[in-house]
Amino acid sequence: MLAGNPLGDPTDRDLLVYTPPGWEAGRPLPALLAVVGFTGTGAMLFNADPLGEDLARRMDRLIASGACPPCLIVAPDCFTRLGGNQYLDSAATGRYEEYLLAEIVPFVAREYGATRWGVFGKSSGGYGSIVLGMRHPEIFLALADHSGDSCFELCYLPDFPGALDAWREAGGPTRWLERFWADENRRRHRYMKPLNMLAMAAHYSPLAGAPHLGIDFPFDLETGEFRPAVWERWRAWDPVNMVEAHAANLRKLRLVYVDCGTKDEFGLHWGARALVAKLGGAGVSPVYHQFDDGHMNISYRYDVSLPLLVRALA
Amino acid sequence: MLAGNPLGDPTDRDLLVYTPPGWEAGRPLPALLAVVGFTGTGAMLFNADPLGEDLARRMDRLIASGACPPCLIVAPDCFTRLGGNQYLDSAATGRYEEYLLAEIVPFVAREYGATRWGVFGKSSGGYGSIVLGMRHPEIFLALADHSGDSCFELCYLPDFPGALDAWREAGGPTRWLERFWADENRRRHRYMKPLNMLAMAAHYSPLAGAPHLGIDFPFDLETGEFRPAVWERWRAWDPVNMVEAHAANLRKLRLVYVDCGTKDEFGLHWGARALVAKLGGAGVSPVYHQFDDGHMNISYRYDVSLPLLVRALA
Amino acid sequence: MLAGNPLGDPTDRDLLVYTPPGWEAGRPLPALLAVVGFTGTGAMLFNADPLGEDLARRMDRLIASGACPPCLIVAPDCFTRLGGNQYLDSAATGRYEEYLLAEIVPFVAREYGATRWGVFGKSSGGYGSIVLGMRHPEIFLALADHSGDSCFELCYLPDFPGALDAWREAGGPTRWLERFWADENRRRHRYMKPLNMLAMAAHYSPLAGAPHLGIDFPFDLETGEFRPAVWERWRAWDPVNMVEAHAANLRKLRLVYVDCGTKDEFGLHWGARALVAKLGGAGVSPVYHQFDDGHMNISYRYDVSLPLLVRALA
Amino acid sequence: MLAGNPLGDPTDRDLLVYTPPGWEAGRPLPALLAVVGFTGTGAMLFNADPLGEDLARRMDRLIASGACPPCLIVAPDCFTRLGGNQYLDSAATGRYEEYLLAEIVPFVAREYGATRWGVFGKSSGGYGSIVLGMRHPEIFLALADHSGDSCFELCYLPDFPGALDAWREAGGPTRWLERFWADENRRRHRYMKPLNMLAMAAHYSPLAGAPHLGIDFPFDLETGEFRPAVWERWRAWDPVNMVEAHAANLRKLRLVYVDCGTKDEFGLHWGARALVAKLGGAGVSPVYHQFDDGHMNISYRYDVSLPLLVRALA
Repeated sequence: MLAGNPLGDPTDRDLLVYTPPGWEAGRPLPALLAVVGFTGTGAMLFNADPLGEDLARRMDRLIASGACPPCLIVAPDCFTRLGGNQYLDSAATGRYEEYLLAEIVPFVAREYGATRWGVFGKSSGGYGSIVLGMRHPEIFLALADHSGDSCFELCYLPDFPGALDAWREAGGPTRWLERFWADENRRRHRYMKPLNMLAMAAHYSPLAGAPHLGIDFPFDLETGEFRPAVWERWRAWDPVNMVEAHAANLRKLRLVYVDCGTKDEFGLHWGARALVAKLGGAGVSPVYHQFDDGHMNISYRYDVSLPLLVRALA
Repeated sequence: MLAGNPLGDPTDRDLLVYTPPGWEAGRPLPALLAVVGFTGTGAMLFNADPLGEDLARRMDRLIASGACPPCLIVAPDCFTRLGGNQYLDSAATGRYEEYLLAEIVPFVAREYGATRWGVFGKSSGGYGSIVLGMRHPEIFLALADHSGDSCFELCYLPDFPGALDAWREAGGPTRWLERFWADENRRRHRYMKPLNMLAMAAHYSPLAGAPHLGIDFPFDLETGEFRPAVWERWRAWDPVNMVEAHAANLRKLRLVYVDCGTKDEFGLHWGARALVAKLGGAGVSPVYHQFDDGHMNISYRYDVSLPLLVRALA
Repeated sequence: MLAGNPLGDPTDRDLLVYTPPGWEAGRPLPALLAVVGFTGTGAMLFNADPLGEDLARRMDRLIASGACPPCLIVAPDCFTRLGGNQYLDSAATGRYEEYLLAEIVPFVAREYGATRWGVFGKSSGGYGSIVLGMRHPEIFLALADHSGDSCFELCYLPDFPGALDAWREAGGPTRWLERFWADENRRRHRYMKPLNMLAMAAHYSPLAGAPHLGIDFPFDLETGEFRPAVWERWRAWDPVNMVEAHAANLRKLRLVYVDCGTKDEFGLHWGARALVAKLGGAGVSPVYHQFDDGHMNISYRYDVSLPLLVRALA
Repeated sequence: MLAGNPLGDPTDRDLLVYTPPGWEAGRPLPALLAVVGFTGTGAMLFNADPLGEDLARRMDRLIASGACPPCLIVAPDCFTRLGGNQYLDSAATGRYEEYLLAEIVPFVAREYGATRWGVFGKSSGGYGSIVLGMRHPEIFLALADHSGDSCFELCYLPDFPGALDAWREAGGPTRWLERFWADENRRRHRYMKPLNMLAMAAHYSPLAGAPHLGIDFPFDLETGEFRPAVWERWRAWDPVNMVEAHAANLRKLRLVYVDCGTKDEFGLHWGARALVAKLGGAGVSPVYHQFDDGHMNISYRYDVSLPLLVRALA
């Protein structure tokens, strides 16, 4: 499905599947698709951290204590040369939505006995969860959107001054991206805004034949003038603006879980509030939590969401 | 003119008038109206700073060296309870444009012998300069817009997540403003975004009878949802969007000077680029400089602009 | 007294004297010597600020309300090419302690009828106040040290990595200082550490004939190695370490006032705690306040200290 | 060796051993002991990162290209309840130096056929490398100190104001540590200074029976007063001050590699300069690189150091 993707990203990908203690091949189990945040891969969910807890230890603990029924966690790699994924099909990045639905899900169903599916993730992964859930209730019965991208005017537009500066300084987004990859240290703070906005534009406003990586931008790259027509394309992918058209789908779901820290550095707590208000207006009753934290290092929230998700799939 | 202003701000204001060395009352001289940036007053232009140079010493030096012909500098106080001024008439703040045109200018013409007028300023004062100039070429023959507000999507929207947070935490903009004034330290960094966005909303989207200080906001204060119709009101006051309708006026001016630091912390260098592009498209040839600095402590730029302004008035 | 100062700083200085409402020349009044913080001059105490209150308005208000008896405020200019003053005699800067004691105080006594003296200030001015007070109780009967430099290991050493970097990049402190003054914008954030540490070294460890402006440094400028012997010279000027030897003098004072914000960005709340502990050990009972704020924009504290000072002089 | 450690840390530890492609058990190979930075474990060297390269992939690549001879990499877990390790024996943390020398090294020699040893690491791991190397040349023939702790006045003292504040607010270091571990998010930025200084004090100035975790501190925890005698204990463990006494040992080493980024956020480039100067003075010729980067995300430097280390062991 990823063959011929426009960024030349690998078509062979790692897929990590967590299996619960005592798991036997073929035993039917509910499965959670884990879609990760920007600059992440599924494998990173299992990275060691002595100050935290990786996802395998967390699940072992939650299952051992009885807090969570046994389940599979399916963590694909959707990383791209643009630094991440919004889990959409885009002419500028590849058919990742299709990849998940038509490759990953059937493969795991077949090989691991996955029965019912939920989807969860944080940040871009929260975005992917709410959007995949509302578009594909025939596959996903439940979703958890943690600190997901939403209210695009608040979470994305503040990154544009810095992104426009970086692209201009490099001679345009294409050359910026080349330089980024040529640098041995790619986690410099100053790279995050241009990388993130490049990836978002690739997902929300791809434009075949556009000079910069087949991507259109909501600001003029030379003058900074706002381009409302392009921004309208972004707005069409804002979960806040998608709820109404997908209300019937959303009402089919057994669980819509939304949470966000009230100090989210990207303002996503506002996105969560607006999203929850829209869900309510569409007749959907999400489980909604605000908590006192920011955007980073909040995987402890999975202790709340994942047991609810797995129980909803029972 | 300021009598009965809705914020209860003083109607008696200081007016500082710089007179050149050897000045004699009644001798005709060109005059520059100085409109200052947010949280400023005209008097602050003359504040002592051993690391810099106040405006009086600067002018004395420029005139003594022959770089600048003698002139008056007229520095009014348009400060408001909202922390500043955009030099517009607004139902939410008062009739400050009218105050400048119908009170200050005639008073100084009469009392000090001011003949021809230019207008200049930085930041909000840059905004005031370009807008006053394009709306009133019958009064202002020349203008200098230093690092002025422009491209509102880039310079204002990034401040909204923080402003919305602060207002919400305080129980709304009205109570936020009360608390702000009740604090003995009003220059805390965290106050700047909510104060600035409150003032901008008061100028661009006042709404008689609105519950919060007679002001409408481009985001829902409870959910953060973007309100495009209100934002369109802001856009109508963005200099970038005002040039076309005011092209004939702008072409009447003897000098349109625009500059901005390429590291402006509010992204206003993008605003300057977009503005200059629009001016060019309207048949106006601004004097335009980009320089290697940020937004703060750049009064040394007046060494470039003020001699040009005064000469243009000759 | 400043003639021939080694930095070539002006010998003619502004002296601002606040006189209370209704003041008449020659009428005897207590006087407060105001010594200001780094990068300041006495004149800056009277700078306009619509979000705050300049010292003249503050005093007018305090006196009008009866909170504070009438007094003079004497605000000299001790600014140097190194950005400020610690109000000591130093071979590297000049004889500023002597300047205050032998020129300013007698002049104001003679010309303005100043009788008894107190001294106050913030930051470097707080340092100057406590040190002038403990060294010259024959002149100063009371002092207020607001957020003054103290516990030098906590307030100064953290600035050295950045200062050493800046000096090295410029080719040494002398060239750094030249470049600093050649820049039209001297209030860049990145200038503060190298400027401040240069000035502190000039006051605490001057060394005749040293290659860098006649100054010795507590770190090797090439390698960064700590030089304990130089640091001991600094420690000798730390108020915390001066109290014991000046205990008898300090006990003569009618008022020793110390305060500091508990969020002081330079850690000076620790300096205040250590200083107050030492004062207590020396039999001095300071008036001591901690308050919930940082280092900047805290002139509202003068509402507390200045009435106490003036009453102590009565 | 870790049994009965005073912090109650686990005595069973993971040990990760990288083996080169085609490795066969028992085949003699040089081995590099990897000691990691603060808040890390050996396992983290192998964490997935799509923007970087984990150590296994890096070694596979370096070996496949011929840049580096085959070797083992031995990555122990020395994490403690205090957030990290300086790889010293301390009464306040445990006998980790002994653990490495008497347990890890013999075990790997026996089980994996490790022959000659080098040691490398970054930050606290760089510190561990230089100190282990200079104290145990009978085991380690070569070392690489990347951005290691050095010049303690510059790299540690700046963290104390924030650490003292945090401890005081919590009611002391013991309670601070309890609260830290009770928080589900332990990677908050504000935790790093108090955690780091607590761990450093535990290594450099343990004091049996001291009220706070058996640790003595270089500042009075109540007043902030500097305690020079305790600081002298720290200084004794500063590599800059250890070189002279260990010169003979250091001269035995086949390779001493030191590098640091010139923008190191902890000022460790100064530590590297001072260390290299001391090494030169002791007749040791280190391989020394300065590079244009900061402290974080610089594992790409291993491409330079590890081949040199392994070749030195040949």
